[in-house]
Amino acid sequence: MKDDKKHTISVLVENHFGVLARVSAMFSSRGYNIDSLCVGETNSPEISRMTVVVRGDDKVLAQIIQQLNKLVDVIEVQDLTQGDFVERELVMVKVKADRKQRAEVVEIANIFRAKVVDIGPASMIVEITGAEGKVTAFVNMMNGFGIEELVRTGEIAISRCGEHGGA
Amino acid sequence: MKDDKKHTISVLVENHFGVLARVSAMFSSRGYNIDSLCVGETNSPEISRMTVVVRGDDKVLAQIIQQLNKLVDVIEVQDLTQGDFVERELVMVKVKADRKQRAEVVEIANIFRAKVVDIGPASMIVEITGAEGKVTAFVNMMNGFGIEELVRTGEIAISRCGEHGGA
Repeated sequence: MKDDKKHTISVLVENHFGVLARVSAMFSSRGYNIDSLCVGETNSPEISRMTVVVRGDDKVLAQIIQQLNKLVDVIEVQDLTQGDFVERELVMVKVKADRKQRAEVVEIANIFRAKVVDIGPASMIVEITGAEGKVTAFVNMMNGFGIEELVRTGEIAISRCGEHGGA
Repeated sequence: MKDDKKHTISVLVENHFGVLARVSAMFSSRGYNIDSLCVGETNSPEISRMTVVVRGDDKVLAQIIQQLNKLVDVIEVQDLTQGDFVERELVMVKVKADRKQRAEVVEIANIFRAKVVDIGPASMIVEITGAEGKVTAFVNMMNGFGIEELVRTGEIAISRCGEHGGA
């Protein structure tokens, strides 16, 4: 039976052409499913950090991490799931809401500390930040009104203060 | 001379193995630089949305979009820069701060409506959500204290209420 534990992998890479394609091919060529992936610059524009959330067999993942470490543009690979870390994602939801439903959407948004960022005659855009569970609970509430569009960043993660001591 | 306008591209894909590698290879094989990329599930688990922020020549981008549309797993490609849209990214910063500096970091965080999410003896983790300009201004302020680690999701974007009518 497969072990489908969730792993949050942080990959520090040189910001070169094609590095994203090479890293993502490393997962897909081994049939490893990527739940989400984010890549953006770090504080140095020539270095980017990818956060990859994957689910699957532990042994295969260990092999993938070993292979990633061999790639020229890869500086460091961390399996954050091994330590204590803070994880967050950002989601924007365009939800159906006319004049009658608006107040109710706003009320739910307030409870979740979500923020209304746009409003139109028949819909609203709400932004929410948090860990997976909170975001999912909010999306489920919005499903009751009807979701027109949903965009999520996927999770980013950072080791807690006192862990690893930063990089 | 190259036109280095920023484009925010939204790509709706079937959630199949290797689609991320194929899409990112499409950009890198043409020497097109990806500033950031996010991919996460939409409201249907079998469909994911990628948000890709790129800079470069308009003609090359038009070709890439045409090629993307031909990929089997690609459902829809939108250049959001063509219309009116809301863009946001999420950034977590681990900043050096001891007992003396803590209050100052918190004060700056409040001004930017950023949120302290973890604290240790010598550092704090602060989370901020916003468009590029706001986030960059905040990161610049944190640079004054010393940044130990910075993770960003890269931008996600959604067309404004009333535009396109949703998808």
